[in-house]
Amino acid sequence: MPENRVWITDVCPRDGFQIEPEFVSTEIKVKVIDALSAAGSAAIEVTSFVHPKAVPQMADAEEVMLNIKRNPGTSYEVLIPNLRGAERALRTNPNQLNLVVSASESHNRSNLRRGTFDTLNDFVEVPKLASSAGVLVQGGVATAFGCPFEGEVPVSRVLDVIHRYLEMGVDTIKLADTTGMANPEQVRNMIREVKNRWPELRIHLHFHNTRGMGLANVYAAYLEGVRHFDASLGGIGGCPFAPGASGNICTEDTVNMFHDMKIVTGVDLDQLLAASGRLEKQLGHSVPSQVLKAGKTLDLHSQPQF
Amino acid sequence: MPENRVWITDVCPRDGFQIEPEFVSTEIKVKVIDALSAAGSAAIEVTSFVHPKAVPQMADAEEVMLNIKRNPGTSYEVLIPNLRGAERALRTNPNQLNLVVSASESHNRSNLRRGTFDTLNDFVEVPKLASSAGVLVQGGVATAFGCPFEGEVPVSRVLDVIHRYLEMGVDTIKLADTTGMANPEQVRNMIREVKNRWPELRIHLHFHNTRGMGLANVYAAYLEGVRHFDASLGGIGGCPFAPGASGNICTEDTVNMFHDMKIVTGVDLDQLLAASGRLEKQLGHSVPSQVLKAGKTLDLHSQPQF
Repeated sequence: MPENRVWITDVCPRDGFQIEPEFVSTEIKVKVIDALSAAGSAAIEVTSFVHPKAVPQMADAEEVMLNIKRNPGTSYEVLIPNLRGAERALRTNPNQLNLVVSASESHNRSNLRRGTFDTLNDFVEVPKLASSAGVLVQGGVATAFGCPFEGEVPVSRVLDVIHRYLEMGVDTIKLADTTGMANPEQVRNMIREVKNRWPELRIHLHFHNTRGMGLANVYAAYLEGVRHFDASLGGIGGCPFAPGASGNICTEDTVNMFHDMKIVTGVDLDQLLAASGRLEKQLGHSVPSQVLKAGKTLDLHSQPQF
Repeated sequence: MPENRVWITDVCPRDGFQIEPEFVSTEIKVKVIDALSAAGSAAIEVTSFVHPKAVPQMADAEEVMLNIKRNPGTSYEVLIPNLRGAERALRTNPNQLNLVVSASESHNRSNLRRGTFDTLNDFVEVPKLASSAGVLVQGGVATAFGCPFEGEVPVSRVLDVIHRYLEMGVDTIKLADTTGMANPEQVRNMIREVKNRWPELRIHLHFHNTRGMGLANVYAAYLEGVRHFDASLGGIGGCPFAPGASGNICTEDTVNMFHDMKIVTGVDLDQLLAASGRLEKQLGHSVPSQVLKAGKTLDLHSQPQF
């Protein structure tokens, strides 16, 4: 792999749409996903195989997976909450199953009403099942850089969760800054600690822009050798603790930064911006994307004439 | 100076207010400036001694300078467009005069209808005059990281402008990313080039968040040893080329990032957030600040009860 290449997973269809107050039609979901893969997205988190009563927005998971166009260059990934979800998901031909547990006990209990390691134990059959189907599994660690209830999360706790995931056979690990509490120095320190213990492990990062540090954290992680990032088209997907605050980092802003630094993403930024512009109409509201408003860095303006 | 200390100049009263469509009353200007110095701002760009017909918003420059409370820990700085402005400014007891010229010829002509080096030649008496009054002078380089008309600005051009400023005796240099075109790798490269030529020169940076890279650029510059940054309370001050896009990086977001990284700013973030909250009322509109919406990183939330 060339040094100056990154792979961005677009989480808009899952993490972004999940927080939309109105149901996003299956047709729009499929259109957005197909636009992302046509633009060259390396990976897309398509949907979640959570119980429809828990998250009605994801009730059409099978239908979405069935109706999207599969681009051989794109990895189609799905979030699964448990073994039952994995069984449902594996019938829809995903490339990867994404598991998630919170490093912080209180955050995990708040989301799942179970402790962190109890949840991890529930996942133990998933990598075996996926492996026999030739599907990859990613172990996600939410609140890896801070918990909105507990504050700082010890690095040792994150390492313990990773260790448990690796014991059960996941392929890669995702560390998520679930509520936007990470800072660049913390990110670098965390990556060094993880790499120190597992030098060959592929680390994937999920950042939020809640306090404006999203791309600073991406840059910091890049400096430490991380090449896999989540981002959301238009920057959709907010923060439940801060109404009006930004959530996920925005895909087109992230791609624009990498392109400005001469780092290859494989994504066509013009197509992405067109998709983001359509997304505002599809959702009926504006999106936090900055590049959609300001244009690409080298979109030039005419000089005023005197 | 300790390694982990930065100095932030708040440009809200000048760069921020200058773009406000309605005249901000002198009383509000003075209140905002006094709140900033009370919160511990290292420096404030208070106003501009430009001709009142050119920028009516700054017509009360003398009155503002006369009515603010002077905090001995704060440097009160003013923008001046020419020698005439410097003479006016020096009668109001500033700590520093800020000059500005665009590295890009077309941008300078668009703003001042003169070429870059003609403008620099007009400044030649200013450092002498200021020096005899015991006042510092900063040479500002606009469009140092890109021009909205020309695109990329050669580093050699920026170095030539700095060279001319230093010949005439300015004390420090400010490089400004006037329309938010800088990226972190470019910032690091620029700083290395400048330090390579003038190892002792104090570099001050002015970033915009137009494309979401504001704090990434601050972090990149910090890694190269820069310790002086501009930022604007609330993040006010937009970009004339991109209506609705962000302009100046936000002071409280910048301070929050540095505090999270255990870097001293000297600023009381709670006081700053209170001032930003009042600013929304004083201006009658919301401000782009992210930390004002999301809260400080370690403002914890109560865990939901079941």
